[in-house]
Amino acid sequence: MFRKAGIALTPSELEKVEVADFGLGNLAVQGLQLVTYINTDRYCAKELALFPHQTCPEHLHPPVGGDPGKMETFRCRWGKVFLYVEGEPAASVQAAVPPGSEAYYTVFHEIVLTPGEQYTIPPGTKHWFQGGPEGAIVSEFSSTSRDEFDIFTDPKVERMPVIEFDD
Amino acid sequence: MFRKAGIALTPSELEKVEVADFGLGNLAVQGLQLVTYINTDRYCAKELALFPHQTCPEHLHPPVGGDPGKMETFRCRWGKVFLYVEGEPAASVQAAVPPGSEAYYTVFHEIVLTPGEQYTIPPGTKHWFQGGPEGAIVSEFSSTSRDEFDIFTDPKVERMPVIEFDD
Repeated sequence: MFRKAGIALTPSELEKVEVADFGLGNLAVQGLQLVTYINTDRYCAKELALFPHQTCPEHLHPPVGGDPGKMETFRCRWGKVFLYVEGEPAASVQAAVPPGSEAYYTVFHEIVLTPGEQYTIPPGTKHWFQGGPEGAIVSEFSSTSRDEFDIFTDPKVERMPVIEFDD
Repeated sequence: MFRKAGIALTPSELEKVEVADFGLGNLAVQGLQLVTYINTDRYCAKELALFPHQTCPEHLHPPVGGDPGKMETFRCRWGKVFLYVEGEPAASVQAAVPPGSEAYYTVFHEIVLTPGEQYTIPPGTKHWFQGGPEGAIVSEFSSTSRDEFDIFTDPKVERMPVIEFDD
């Protein structure tokens, strides 16, 4: 998908594309693929890939210490993305909420992004997003990323990989 | 060039591509074209276009108030860019310093970026860069941009447009 979208990645970036299934065990339905280009104490930039109809589950970025919480700009590079944030809900939502997880999707103010379009999400705002029929490539420009502090609506979500040991 | 590089811009972004000739009156030699996607008090993202052999003149980003100075990551998306920063000078510099402006180019530590490659410039570091034989498209991820405070080595440079009035 990155190649199809004309996004150049180095061989070492391609080797370590992050695959996040959020501990839910159904990547194609709820998941996200990403490359973090840079994450410093001042700013962050990532390239996200969403499969067709794949959903990044609802979450928010809380304040952390002196940081008011991550602020992020999503810019669609390829495909289409349905983005939902707090606010007036859409009369008819174009994305399909992942079946069985309806309780964990609570915000429905709809923004549809096609290539060249972008939207900025203020800190502390619940949001979720879903790839369109062909999926999407989305650039994320933001303040510092501290994924481990993200708050997901679904309590089953584990954002960071959990390593299990045999006793 | 944006189109050739597969960078999607909205019609309104295309209408307001910033053309910076730095007040030097010779855009093809010393100049830069850019689109600012977002510039908040927390982060900034831009897309830069350099014509073949076009040079962005040497400058640095100083501390401004409580800000330690702009930190920026250049990521080549298309073409090739020659980037020069403080440090061990290259034995043989691949870019051509703009004729007549030799005095205003003083750092020659060379970084060559091709698509997918990137480099992060610390605050307060002198740098300049030049498009390769076909030019370049470069994504810039950074802390907040305050271009009006940039310090150029060439005292003739005017980063911000100057409006002249007839008496």
